[in-house]
Amino acid sequence: MPSTHILSAYDEELQYLARRISEMGGLAEQMCAQGVRALVNSDAALAQKVISDDVILDQMEREIGEKAIVTIAKRQPMAGDLREIIGTLRIAADLERVGDLGKNTAKRVIAVQSGGVPRKLARGLEHLSELALEQLKEVLDVYVTRSPEKAEAIRLRDEEIDAMYTSLFRELLTYMMEDPRNITSCTHLLFCAKNIERIGDHATNIAETIFYITTGHAPEGERPKDDTSNTLGAVNS
Amino acid sequence: MPSTHILSAYDEELQYLARRISEMGGLAEQMCAQGVRALVNSDAALAQKVISDDVILDQMEREIGEKAIVTIAKRQPMAGDLREIIGTLRIAADLERVGDLGKNTAKRVIAVQSGGVPRKLARGLEHLSELALEQLKEVLDVYVTRSPEKAEAIRLRDEEIDAMYTSLFRELLTYMMEDPRNITSCTHLLFCAKNIERIGDHATNIAETIFYITTGHAPEGERPKDDTSNTLGAVNS
Repeated sequence: MPSTHILSAYDEELQYLARRISEMGGLAEQMCAQGVRALVNSDAALAQKVISDDVILDQMEREIGEKAIVTIAKRQPMAGDLREIIGTLRIAADLERVGDLGKNTAKRVIAVQSGGVPRKLARGLEHLSELALEQLKEVLDVYVTRSPEKAEAIRLRDEEIDAMYTSLFRELLTYMMEDPRNITSCTHLLFCAKNIERIGDHATNIAETIFYITTGHAPEGERPKDDTSNTLGAVNS
Repeated sequence: MPSTHILSAYDEELQYLARRISEMGGLAEQMCAQGVRALVNSDAALAQKVISDDVILDQMEREIGEKAIVTIAKRQPMAGDLREIIGTLRIAADLERVGDLGKNTAKRVIAVQSGGVPRKLARGLEHLSELALEQLKEVLDVYVTRSPEKAEAIRLRDEEIDAMYTSLFRELLTYMMEDPRNITSCTHLLFCAKNIERIGDHATNIAETIFYITTGHAPEGERPKDDTSNTLGAVNS
């Protein structure tokens, strides 16, 4: 919650870190959205842009890391504020990986290009991506308001993405079985779907970090983690 | 390098963190090795053990995180020692994810069980896993000696794993094309291979963290990152 008193230099440093996290979040989101768009439209130029953006995102993470170290060394904060700053580092690491997932999807554009992406699968990927990016966006909003209750609610909502991923996974397998010529491109699409599903995992990680920053401890209970596609046996048997 | 003077309480705290990292590393390695063994032997009991071990690994990461916060708050270290402690947090996060990859492989044992893993593919997976775990073991040894040169050497050696992963990827695709009944189990094996390849990425991350701890800056130049399977087109065309 924004404080109403006049800001100290220290508060400004914390706010600087929070602002940089929001910027990183915006770029990581954009990379993932554009990675999927490049994939479904076979847009190699857009894919190349996403790949280049990853260098910027990595640089942002490094800058946040350096600023965090300087802030800790200068201010010597006690446990509560330390959690805040260290939480920033964790969130930055999650966002860096979200960007990597967007880049990995973009890199697969060329491999998939020849066959193109069938309309139905493209819609499935887009839908999954919208859901995952919506969750990422929400958790970044919660990072601004610092509500542990909202963080907890997001943490428990990853199941929807997992269910949709599992259904897409089945569909891709069926498609491969119908015609072996689909196998190569569908394999790449499987990895893309997995990339998108993992964005949801990172949103969940960020929710856990916010919970930790605001309460000082990890959320209770096992999170609803991992998709159920792991244990899916043969689709047609 | 171990100092010869009498240890201060602070040194002891740093050594405690380093020891816990080694323990985490040992467990994460074991989980990955056992995950692959469970997979190639269709050993559901061993898979279940790996899945349970992940709870312990997560707890270890949390303990390291708490100890690190307490150490920073109590000792108020300057930039050099701060990097050391924050590096510990980063390495713990990488090892936690390595364990997740082992668990994910273990979870796929049931899905793959019915078809079994053909001998040639099993050997490929085992070989890839040995290489990745060797790299992880080496980087954890370098963490003890803190040599930036050795860390840099490991960072540049990820290519071998990537090349082997790409070859296994091709082989799995060929296998799927030969007989569509292989598609489901080979898809799970593809994800397992990707899990193993990602162990190498985490070893590389840890090498970068060691470089950062010892030198105060990130290594120069783009690392040889990501496998080339991303851009593999149709195998049989």
